[in-house]
Amino acid sequence: MAAAARPVTDDLVAGLRGIVGQRGLLLGADVATRSCDPFRDVPPEGGVIVRPASTGEVSRVLAFCHARGQRVVTHGGRTGVAGGAYAGLDEIILSLERFAQIEEIDAIGMSVVVQAGATLEAVQDAVAADGLLYPIDLGAKGSATIGGTIATNAGGNRVVRWGMTRANVLGLEAVLADGTIVSAMNRLVKNNSGYDVKQLFIGSEGTLGVVTRAVLKLVPAPSSQSAALLALPDFASVLDLLGRARRLATLSAFEVMWSDYYRLVATSGTGRDPLPPAHPYYVLVEVMGHAEEVDRVQFDAFLGEAHDAGLIADAVVAGSGQQIAELWRVREASEVLVRTLGSFVSFDVSIEERAAESFVEAARAALTSRFETVRTVTFGHLGDNNLHVGVHVGPDTFTRETEVERCVYAVVKEHGGALSAEHGVGRFKREFLPEHVSPGALDVMRRVRSALDPSALLNHEVLF
Amino acid sequence: MAAAARPVTDDLVAGLRGIVGQRGLLLGADVATRSCDPFRDVPPEGGVIVRPASTGEVSRVLAFCHARGQRVVTHGGRTGVAGGAYAGLDEIILSLERFAQIEEIDAIGMSVVVQAGATLEAVQDAVAADGLLYPIDLGAKGSATIGGTIATNAGGNRVVRWGMTRANVLGLEAVLADGTIVSAMNRLVKNNSGYDVKQLFIGSEGTLGVVTRAVLKLVPAPSSQSAALLALPDFASVLDLLGRARRLATLSAFEVMWSDYYRLVATSGTGRDPLPPAHPYYVLVEVMGHAEEVDRVQFDAFLGEAHDAGLIADAVVAGSGQQIAELWRVREASEVLVRTLGSFVSFDVSIEERAAESFVEAARAALTSRFETVRTVTFGHLGDNNLHVGVHVGPDTFTRETEVERCVYAVVKEHGGALSAEHGVGRFKREFLPEHVSPGALDVMRRVRSALDPSALLNHEVLF
Repeated sequence: MAAAARPVTDDLVAGLRGIVGQRGLLLGADVATRSCDPFRDVPPEGGVIVRPASTGEVSRVLAFCHARGQRVVTHGGRTGVAGGAYAGLDEIILSLERFAQIEEIDAIGMSVVVQAGATLEAVQDAVAADGLLYPIDLGAKGSATIGGTIATNAGGNRVVRWGMTRANVLGLEAVLADGTIVSAMNRLVKNNSGYDVKQLFIGSEGTLGVVTRAVLKLVPAPSSQSAALLALPDFASVLDLLGRARRLATLSAFEVMWSDYYRLVATSGTGRDPLPPAHPYYVLVEVMGHAEEVDRVQFDAFLGEAHDAGLIADAVVAGSGQQIAELWRVREASEVLVRTLGSFVSFDVSIEERAAESFVEAARAALTSRFETVRTVTFGHLGDNNLHVGVHVGPDTFTRETEVERCVYAVVKEHGGALSAEHGVGRFKREFLPEHVSPGALDVMRRVRSALDPSALLNHEVLF
Repeated sequence: MAAAARPVTDDLVAGLRGIVGQRGLLLGADVATRSCDPFRDVPPEGGVIVRPASTGEVSRVLAFCHARGQRVVTHGGRTGVAGGAYAGLDEIILSLERFAQIEEIDAIGMSVVVQAGATLEAVQDAVAADGLLYPIDLGAKGSATIGGTIATNAGGNRVVRWGMTRANVLGLEAVLADGTIVSAMNRLVKNNSGYDVKQLFIGSEGTLGVVTRAVLKLVPAPSSQSAALLALPDFASVLDLLGRARRLATLSAFEVMWSDYYRLVATSGTGRDPLPPAHPYYVLVEVMGHAEEVDRVQFDAFLGEAHDAGLIADAVVAGSGQQIAELWRVREASEVLVRTLGSFVSFDVSIEERAAESFVEAARAALTSRFETVRTVTFGHLGDNNLHVGVHVGPDTFTRETEVERCVYAVVKEHGGALSAEHGVGRFKREFLPEHVSPGALDVMRRVRSALDPSALLNHEVLF
């Protein structure tokens, strides 16, 4: 599959310029000053960024590249953490940044039609005026684009209520590697007219086509919000609490922090210590609804019953929006992790709820048996099975990254977990994918990729 | 693509018997007494039903058929209304009826592992003991199988709350036409480890593989239920009411009946007349939750506010489970339609909420301009865009079925609607599919089918 590196040639540039014009093309320093990684400076190697401003231009760019056997890497907001936006010498970049309009809001049908380059935040702001919410919520929402969140099936903090991106996309338009425009701009909740082709493009990390437009499903923006931070005496209490929380139709988040995470954050001197750090588990539970009083009564009853059942060792109940935000600051403290641990290898795995405690213990044991210094931080969206684990093994953590990954992913596999819950596979986890999916499933993936992009020109190094 | 008819040959029967044994094979009268249609007597023409009892047997049967170029039609509960279970002379039947165990219930993770031949009702009964609900709810649940509901992405009455089958399947196992076993028995809410291959099999109507097992997502069984039947003065009020209902996190159904439907049912002499039949629209709205008192307070507040806003002309609020069931009898009265109209052509389309009234009027106008006698009944799951329309054009309705369909589907297309909301395309709507999806989308469907089943041996006459 390896192609010879194709340096930027005059006819490549001229051909692309003929399609997108001078404004649609970036070369030289304009390329080198961009990074493909949100945390590090990793410029695209290929030296060309093409920025089509319409679906037709995307189609003509891809058809042109297809005819030349030119590989293409698609860029959204470049906030992905799996290396999906990295581009090698023989790859040009296709960026959707000039195709970013919000085309139409339907307040009755509760949907919005957007171009793929629009950011998540721009969409949220635009629909808020109609009392609506696009419920995918990520830290990177100011930069992450709709196209990128669709390509990676982004998750985030409110999946327990509204699902991942897949559950919130009604329709989309995509362009195949050969330039074929696939319009599936469905606006209907129910549509069983043939295969649901949009599903192919959601979560396929840009390997099956370039998503150009989408119809997103909206929900009425909640008008009430309550949250509490709870300390729990053991993991059985966490599971019991989760079972009870799932009976709240208003449940919008159920975030668990292991003591290794909470203690680090609470003692960081950044004012993130609403509860003393002596307990084994902390849960941030949140509800959102449309009836302030009734929602609060229900939430208080939930907390009261959990307390009476002996599940809660300590608690802080937020009394205002400001206090809710302060509780979320405890959960979203990545800059504290970076500052305190220095380097760490970051995992985004899924584990069944019932296996989560034993997974964390087994992963720590496996790491401790292999590395002299081991420090972990563990937290995640337990209601969605999603655990994030950060692992520090000393000053050489980054050089030993693959070794750390092998160790942890073996434990993930033993526990029936998933290699990636929400970040995707990208380039970084590619070597682990075949061990974490069945041979038959991998066979289907290969057949489908080959059917839509026979030369694997799109995001060639991504996934498999 | 037309293959010569293959009569039942001794070596075909011997080969299949070698895989599934005598009990796994039906021939002769055992085949002829079965129907492929839930309403009519349509025996399979091919004369062979093979009934594997394990995934391995399904795989060997399909590999054997693949090697012979033998076409196969898969049978679940044969409750589909789009002709997907019909089988021609050159097709054998593969029935999952002997592969129907409920393998494992996970009360903590709230999932159940089932074999594809289990009925919807058997699954619901099994999980109820753990206080759980599989929320797909269909009239045919006593016969419809999990495999069939997955293959058709079945919908039903509670989609507005819990989504269609696609939203309730965590993982599945399928066998490709060549016998390849594809295991994607995911139990995790979040799993972005490569393409989500299960999506291919959900809603593809058995054309991409035979679904053999599944992991279904469960929800806590609601303990409270309230419902009301409301009469509304106009369609604007229906839309306003729907917008308010969507703010109820407990909303579990929002069913609209046009006056043509309600009048027919209410005057049928079957005791289905909780409100006088003089109003233009009737809505059955239902909520389900886990807190009887609070849920009822919220539902009453919703009804009170809708009344104060002038949306409600008349109302019956159910005071007991028995009364809720009686309201549902008004909505589920298909035997009344059959008895009163005799013959009618049945539509299952999706239309955007805002276009639903004008669609119904335009469809009636188009029918009236073409047929002398026209009688319609219109009802549906408006919160999911799904309208069911029954059309009677006189005693020759069935012989003029295609003419009626052409007329209505043209109006569906003009209104941006979908050919099928939940019943699927099957054989019956196949000729209309190319007009109702984009050329690019159809191209993708063809490429994918060809990649997984190059000779289109599975459900050959279905979809396209």
